Amino acid sequence: MALIVQKYGGTSVGSIERIQAVAERVKRWREQGDQVVVVVSAMSGETDRLLTLARQLQARPEPRELDVLLSTGEQVTIALLSMALAASGCPARSYTGAQVHILTDSAHNKARIRDIDAARVRADLDAGRVVVIAGFQGIDEQGDITTLGRGGSDTSAVAIAAALQADECQIYTDVDGVYTTDPRVEPKARKLDRITFEEMLEMASLGSKVLQIRSVEFAGKYRVPLRVLSSFEDGAGTLISFEDNAVEDAKISGIAFSRDEAKLTVLGVPDQPGVAHRILGPIAEANIEVDMIVQNVGADGSTTDFTFTVHRNDYAQALDILQHIATDLSARHVTGDTAIVKLSLVGVGMRSHAGIASQMFASLAKEGINIRMISTSEIKISVVIDEKYLELGVRTLHEAFGLDRAPAAAA
Amino acid sequence: MALIVQKYGGTSVGSIERIQAVAERVKRWREQGDQVVVVVSAMSGETDRLLTLARQLQARPEPRELDVLLSTGEQVTIALLSMALAASGCPARSYTGAQVHILTDSAHNKARIRDIDAARVRADLDAGRVVVIAGFQGIDEQGDITTLGRGGSDTSAVAIAAALQADECQIYTDVDGVYTTDPRVEPKARKLDRITFEEMLEMASLGSKVLQIRSVEFAGKYRVPLRVLSSFEDGAGTLISFEDNAVEDAKISGIAFSRDEAKLTVLGVPDQPGVAHRILGPIAEANIEVDMIVQNVGADGSTTDFTFTVHRNDYAQALDILQHIATDLSARHVTGDTAIVKLSLVGVGMRSHAGIASQMFASLAKEGINIRMISTSEIKISVVIDEKYLELGVRTLHEAFGLDRAPAAAA
Repeated sequence: MALIVQKYGGTSVGSIERIQAVAERVKRWREQGDQVVVVVSAMSGETDRLLTLARQLQARPEPRELDVLLSTGEQVTIALLSMALAASGCPARSYTGAQVHILTDSAHNKARIRDIDAARVRADLDAGRVVVIAGFQGIDEQGDITTLGRGGSDTSAVAIAAALQADECQIYTDVDGVYTTDPRVEPKARKLDRITFEEMLEMASLGSKVLQIRSVEFAGKYRVPLRVLSSFEDGAGTLISFEDNAVEDAKISGIAFSRDEAKLTVLGVPDQPGVAHRILGPIAEANIEVDMIVQNVGADGSTTDFTFTVHRNDYAQALDILQHIATDLSARHVTGDTAIVKLSLVGVGMRSHAGIASQMFASLAKEGINIRMISTSEIKISVVIDEKYLELGVRTLHEAFGLDRAPAAAA
Repeated sequence: MALIVQKYGGTSVGSIERIQAVAERVKRWREQGDQVVVVVSAMSGETDRLLTLARQLQARPEPRELDVLLSTGEQVTIALLSMALAASGCPARSYTGAQVHILTDSAHNKARIRDIDAARVRADLDAGRVVVIAGFQGIDEQGDITTLGRGGSDTSAVAIAAALQADECQIYTDVDGVYTTDPRVEPKARKLDRITFEEMLEMASLGSKVLQIRSVEFAGKYRVPLRVLSSFEDGAGTLISFEDNAVEDAKISGIAFSRDEAKLTVLGVPDQPGVAHRILGPIAEANIEVDMIVQNVGADGSTTDFTFTVHRNDYAQALDILQHIATDLSARHVTGDTAIVKLSLVGVGMRSHAGIASQMFASLAKEGINIRMISTSEIKISVVIDEKYLELGVRTLHEAFGLDRAPAAAA
C-alpha cells in the first residue's frame, strides 16, 4: 500500500464532467489499495472571474483581501470533488489550507509554506477516506488567509507530500510528461521517462512551463519523488528522480528556451573595481531581475563592456535607468536588443563529459547561427542568439545530441 | 461613540455598484464617530449558482461538503466589501466565520451558534478599522465549516452584536421597516417607528417575512436592540425594542396573516382522555408541524370534534394519516379544507385592554366574514377564515383598530 499525493490543476477540474473524471481516476488508485490525498486548484476561469470583480473596486486590490477572495476558488473545487467522490462510492473529506494548518509567512499573494500539520489528514486516511485539500492557499500565524501566488498548487502538493512522507507526488497536467524540448518547435521531441531534479530545475527556470520551479525546489529539498502525468490520458508520465537512479548514459536530457529575454550593454565603462555594482545596483533597486551577466574587456584594454539580460517586460525601464547613470559611469554608450532568445542544453551527464560546449557551438556555427552571449553552470550551457534562429537552433541541437532517440539504458 | 453592527443581505450586495453603495453608507456612519461591524450575505444569485453545481454531482449533496461550498459565497462578499471600503479611504478587515470563531454545533446546513470570540474584532475596532464578517457561517468544535441555513446571516449579525454588546444591530433589507400589515394587501398600511420584541416575534411567526424568526429570538434573549432599515433609501426604519420603552398608547401594533394554512377535523371522536395524543402522535411522528389546535364538544355530548391546522404542503399527508387511524379512533368522519387563511391581531397593549377580541369578532361579523377557528395568546388573537375573505378581513381590522393613524404618543 502506497501513499500517493495527486495534484490536479484548473483545466483538469474545469467543469462538472472533468471533476467526475478526476473522481473516477482517484477511485481507481484507491481500489488498487493505495491511500490518496488530492490537491486541487480553482476551476479554470474562476480565478480570473474573481480578479475581475476585485479590480472593479481597486486597481491594485488590498493584498490581504485579495487572498480572502481568491482562496474561495479552490474551496469550491474541494467541496465539489468530495461530493463527486462520495457519489462514486468513495468516502472523502475536504479541507481548506487553514483547516490543515498550511502555515505560511505573511507575504500575501506570494506566501511561502513553513509548516503543515498532517495529523488530521493521517487520521482520515487511516479511516479509509480520500482527503481533498485546497492548493495554493494557507494561513499565517495571525490566522489570516494567504495564497502562494499563481501555480502555487504544485508547491502545496509537494509540501503536503513531504509532510506526509508520501511515496510519490503526482502532478496531473494537460501534457503527458516532460519532453526533450517543446514539441511545437521540434516535432521529433521525445517524452522522457525520467529526469533528475537538477535537470528539471534548470528546465523549469529556463522556461519549460510544465512545473512551477518552486515546487521542484521543494521536492528536491525534501526528497519527494515527483511525477508529471496527463489528466486526460493514461500513461506513466515522467518521473523526476534523484541522480542515483538516473540514466547515466544520456549526456543531455533536454533543450530549454525562453523568448522573454532582452539584452542590455553598457559600452566602454572604465575597467575599475565596483563597476558591476554601480551598474546593477540601480537595476536591483528597481526590482528588475537580472538573468545572464557577461563582462568583456573592451577594445582599448582600459575600458570594459558590460552586458546582461532581463525579462523583456522590464527592458524599457532598465534601458531608462542605464541611460540616466551612463554619464556618472563615464560609459561611452548604452545599447540594447529585444529580438533575442536564450537556448539551453541541460543534462547531468554534462559534468563528466568534456566537449559538450564545443560540440554545441560547432553545431550552431554550421547553421550560421551567431552566439551573442554564453553562460554555463554545472549541468547547463545557455546561449543567447537572435530570435529568428530559435526554431533552427532548437532543431539543430536536438539532432546533434541525438535527443530523438531513446537512450540505450532506458530503452 | 456607539458600536453598531450592520447586516446587509444578498440583494444589498448583489453587484459591484451595490457593494460600493454599502461602503459609502458604512463610511458615513464611521464619519459620525461610530464603530461599525458589517455582516454580509452572499451576493444574490451566488448561493443558487453553487447549489446548481453541487446538485449536478449529488441529488442530495453531502451536508458537510455543501457547507464548505456555500460558505465561499459570503467569503467573496467580505473580501469585495473590504476592498470597496479601502478604496473609499476607510480601513477595513474581513473575517470568515471560522476566523472569528463563530462556534456552532455540528448540524450541517442548519447549525446553531453557541459562542463567538470577539477579541479580534474588538482589537480591529480599537485600531480604527471597520470589521467585515461573513454571515450565515461558523465552525464546529472539530474545525469543520458549518452554515446556519438560509436567512442565517440575520442570526449571525445578532449573535455578533450580542457578543460585542453593541448598541444597536441594524438589519438592512429591501423594505424600509416593519408595517402595520402587508402594504400590498392594505395600501393604508403604516410603517411603525417602534415595535416590541414580543410583537415582532408574533409577526415573524405569523408570516411577516421581514426578519428571520431565530434572529429575533436571539436578539430578545440577549437584549440586543434591533433596527430594520432599507439599504436603498435613507430613513430611521423600525426599532424593535424592549417593552419598557414601548408606546403604551397603541393597543394593536399590526395585523399578520398567513396563506400557507390548511385545516383538518376529526368529527365525532369519543370524548375520552388521551384522544388528542392518539390523533396528534402519528402526525408528529411524520414530522408534520401542527399550528392551531381546537377541541369542541360534539353535538351529542359524548363525542368531540378535534380540529388543527398544518402547513398547506403537509395537508395531503396529514389527511392520509387521519383517514388511516379514523377507524381505530371510532371517529365518525375526517374532513379538511385548504382554502383557509390565518389572520392575527398582534399587540402588547392587548394584555391590559379587555374587549379587543370582541371588537375583532364584531368587525369581522359586520362584513359577513365567518370565523372557523380562534386561538389566542397573551399578545395575539388569531382567527382562521375562508381564503376569499383575506383582503377584506385585513382591511376591516386595519380600519377598526385605527392602524392607519400614528398613535398620539409617537407622533
